[in-house]
Amino acid sequence: MLKRFLLTPGPTPVPPEVLAAMAEPVMHHRAPRFTAVLTDVVAGLKSIYQTGNDVLVFASSGTGAMESAVVNLVAPGDRVIVASAGKFGERWLQLNRTWGADVVALEYEYGTRADPADIERALAEHPDVVAVFVQSSETSTGVLNDIRAIGEVVSRTPALLVVDAISGLGATDLRTDEWHVDVCVAGSQKALMVPPGLAYVAVSTKAWKKVEATDNPRYYFDWTAARTKMAGDSAQTPYTPAVSLLAAQNAAIRLIHEEGLENVFERHRMLGRACREGARAQGLSLFGPDDPEANSVTAIVVPDGVDGGRITSLARDKYGVWLAGGQGAMKGRIFRFGHCGYFGASDIVVGLSVMEMVLAELGYPVRWGASLAAAEQVFMQSTVAL
Amino acid sequence: MLKRFLLTPGPTPVPPEVLAAMAEPVMHHRAPRFTAVLTDVVAGLKSIYQTGNDVLVFASSGTGAMESAVVNLVAPGDRVIVASAGKFGERWLQLNRTWGADVVALEYEYGTRADPADIERALAEHPDVVAVFVQSSETSTGVLNDIRAIGEVVSRTPALLVVDAISGLGATDLRTDEWHVDVCVAGSQKALMVPPGLAYVAVSTKAWKKVEATDNPRYYFDWTAARTKMAGDSAQTPYTPAVSLLAAQNAAIRLIHEEGLENVFERHRMLGRACREGARAQGLSLFGPDDPEANSVTAIVVPDGVDGGRITSLARDKYGVWLAGGQGAMKGRIFRFGHCGYFGASDIVVGLSVMEMVLAELGYPVRWGASLAAAEQVFMQSTVAL
Repeated sequence: MLKRFLLTPGPTPVPPEVLAAMAEPVMHHRAPRFTAVLTDVVAGLKSIYQTGNDVLVFASSGTGAMESAVVNLVAPGDRVIVASAGKFGERWLQLNRTWGADVVALEYEYGTRADPADIERALAEHPDVVAVFVQSSETSTGVLNDIRAIGEVVSRTPALLVVDAISGLGATDLRTDEWHVDVCVAGSQKALMVPPGLAYVAVSTKAWKKVEATDNPRYYFDWTAARTKMAGDSAQTPYTPAVSLLAAQNAAIRLIHEEGLENVFERHRMLGRACREGARAQGLSLFGPDDPEANSVTAIVVPDGVDGGRITSLARDKYGVWLAGGQGAMKGRIFRFGHCGYFGASDIVVGLSVMEMVLAELGYPVRWGASLAAAEQVFMQSTVAL
Repeated sequence: MLKRFLLTPGPTPVPPEVLAAMAEPVMHHRAPRFTAVLTDVVAGLKSIYQTGNDVLVFASSGTGAMESAVVNLVAPGDRVIVASAGKFGERWLQLNRTWGADVVALEYEYGTRADPADIERALAEHPDVVAVFVQSSETSTGVLNDIRAIGEVVSRTPALLVVDAISGLGATDLRTDEWHVDVCVAGSQKALMVPPGLAYVAVSTKAWKKVEATDNPRYYFDWTAARTKMAGDSAQTPYTPAVSLLAAQNAAIRLIHEEGLENVFERHRMLGRACREGARAQGLSLFGPDDPEANSVTAIVVPDGVDGGRITSLARDKYGVWLAGGQGAMKGRIFRFGHCGYFGASDIVVGLSVMEMVLAELGYPVRWGASLAAAEQVFMQSTVAL
C-alpha cells in the first residue's frame, strides 16, 4: 500500500473535481452540448493565454501541437531561428529540420537562458527569418526564458515568435498579446490540470498570414481547417475531439478562475520558492539561474558522491513519490521537482521529506528536517492558500 | 486551491480503487450479484476479525451497531460491567442505561487503560453480570485496551465480552476468537477504508445464546433476522443494504488482503511510531501510555500557553489538514492525529509539518523541522511499504 505522489512536470496530479467531470457520461461531439463545452474551453484558455487571438484545440500531446506550428508556418527552405537550451529546445530543432527548414541554431548550455540580444543579432544578420522558436519554461531544466524581452526583439521584424509554453502556461505570467507572442503552444497535462491528450495553440493575425502562405501537406494538424470548424455558434472540431478530456479541461478552467489567475501565479511562486529554499537548506545547488518566476520545475544538482540515477527510482519504489531525473545530457546530473498545476504545500513537504530520506540512503550527509524547516518558513508567509 | 488531507480517526481517506468501486453502477440487492458481493465481504471481514463466528452487516454508523449489541444482549435489569476511559466508553454507559441495564461502571481517567484486574474483581463481586463492555482502541484518547487480558478474565465467567473495535479493527491485531471476544463491533469508515455507512458485528456462539434469551423489542437491528437472511447460498440482508458501500468494502478488503494483514498492522506501527517520535522531538507530551500497538490515533497534549481550541481550525482553514481536537473533557487539552486505514508516510509528513507551522503561529517555540527529522528516521527503517 503505497500512496503515490506525482511531483513531475507532466503528467501532473488532477483535482478531484476534474476527475469527476472526466467521469461524466461521454457526450457526442456533433451536438450542441459539445459546442457549449468547446466554446467555454476556448474562452477560458484565452483568458489564461491573456490573448484575443484564435485558440485552436487538438487531441494530441504537446509535441503534436509543436509539430503543427512548424507544419503550418515553415515551408521547406524557410529560414528560422531556434533558441535551444534543453531537451525541448532540441525538439524545436528536430521538428524544423524534419520539415526542411534552414535553421539558425542558437544553442545554449543546459541550465541557462536564451539571450534576447543573440536573437536580435541573428535576426539582423538573417533578415529573411520567418520565425523564432523558443521555450518559455524549458521543462528539462526548469529555466524560464525572458519571453517579454524576446517578444520585443522579434516584433520589430517580420519574423513570428513561436513559444512552447507547455510547462509554463498557467503557472507563470505569460502575456501572449502584450508580449507579442505570435504562436503559443500549451498542453492539458501540466498547469492546466488535466490528464495528457489535449494540446492548444494560440495564433496571431501576423501568424495567420504566414499560415496562408505556407503549403506544406497537412491534414489532422491543419490550422485553417481547425479555425474554420471551431468558428461561430456551432463550433466543433474537424476530427473526433477528446470529449471527456475537454469536459475535464472545462472543469479545470473553472477552478483556475475561482482561484484567480494572479493567485495561481502567486501559489506557484510560493511552491517554487519553498522548493528552492528546501534544497539550499540541505546544502544542495540549484541548477540554473535563481529566478523567482521560474516556478514550473525546480532542478537540483546531484551532489558529489551520490548516484544520481538512483534518486528517482528510490523515491518512486520505496516512497511512492515520482520525482523527475535529468533528461538528455543531464541524466544522472540533476533531479527535478515538478510543481506546475494542482500542487500545494503538502506536495512540496512530501517531496522534500522523501528527498532527505533518499539522499541519506545514497550516502549524502543530510541535515535532517532542514529542508522542511526552510519550506515551512516560506509557507507560513504565504498570502495565498497553499 | 487547498489540497485537503483527512488526518482524523474517521472518516478516513478512501483509496482510489475503492472510490472507483463505489462509482460502479448501482446493483439491486435482491439479485445473485449482490449475494456474491455480500458473501465476499463477510468472508473478508471474518479474516480481518480473525474469527469463525457469524459476522452481521448493517447499514448504519458504528453507534447503531453498538446499540444493536445492547438491544440484542441486555434485558432491562440485567447487570453489566462497562469499563470506560473516554467518550466512547461513555457511549457504552449511555446505551446500557438507555436500555435499562443495571450498570457496574468502571470509570477510568481519560488517557488510561481499563485494568483487567478491576474487571476480574467486579465479575467476582457480581457473578450475575451478563456482559462486559469495553473499547479496544478508545478513539477519543488513542488508548488501546488489553483485550487479550480482558478476554481471559471474562471467558472464565458466564459473562460475554463486548468490544467496540470501531477504530481498532484492521489497524491493530485483534484476535476475536483466540482472545475470547464474544461480540466485536466495527465500522466501515476507519481502518476498513470505506466511507461511513456500514457497521459490522461478529457474534460468538456464547453470545447467540443470550440473544435468544433476550426479548427487547427490536426490528432493524435484530441480529437473529440478520443472521437468518444472511445465511446460505442466497444470502441477502433483511432490509435494503447500502449496496455501493458494500461494493466499496469488497474492494477495500481486496486491498487489505493484497497488502497482507500482518503488513497492514506493521504499517500502522510505523505510522504511530513516527507520529509519536515527531511529537516528542518537538518537546510535546503524548497523552496516554506509550504503547507500540496503539496505532489508530495519536493524542498529543496541547502545550502550555497554546490555545488548544485553535490548533485544529488553523490546520484546517489555512493548510487544508483536518486534525482532530479533544472530545468531551479533553476539549482544548489534547489534539489528535488519526492514522488508521488508508494512511502512509506522506500523510504523517504533511501532518507533522502543519503541526509545526500551526504551533509556531500559536506561540509555541517550535524546533523547525525536528518533527519531520524524527519521523524520517522511523520511515527509513520500515520493512513495509509506507
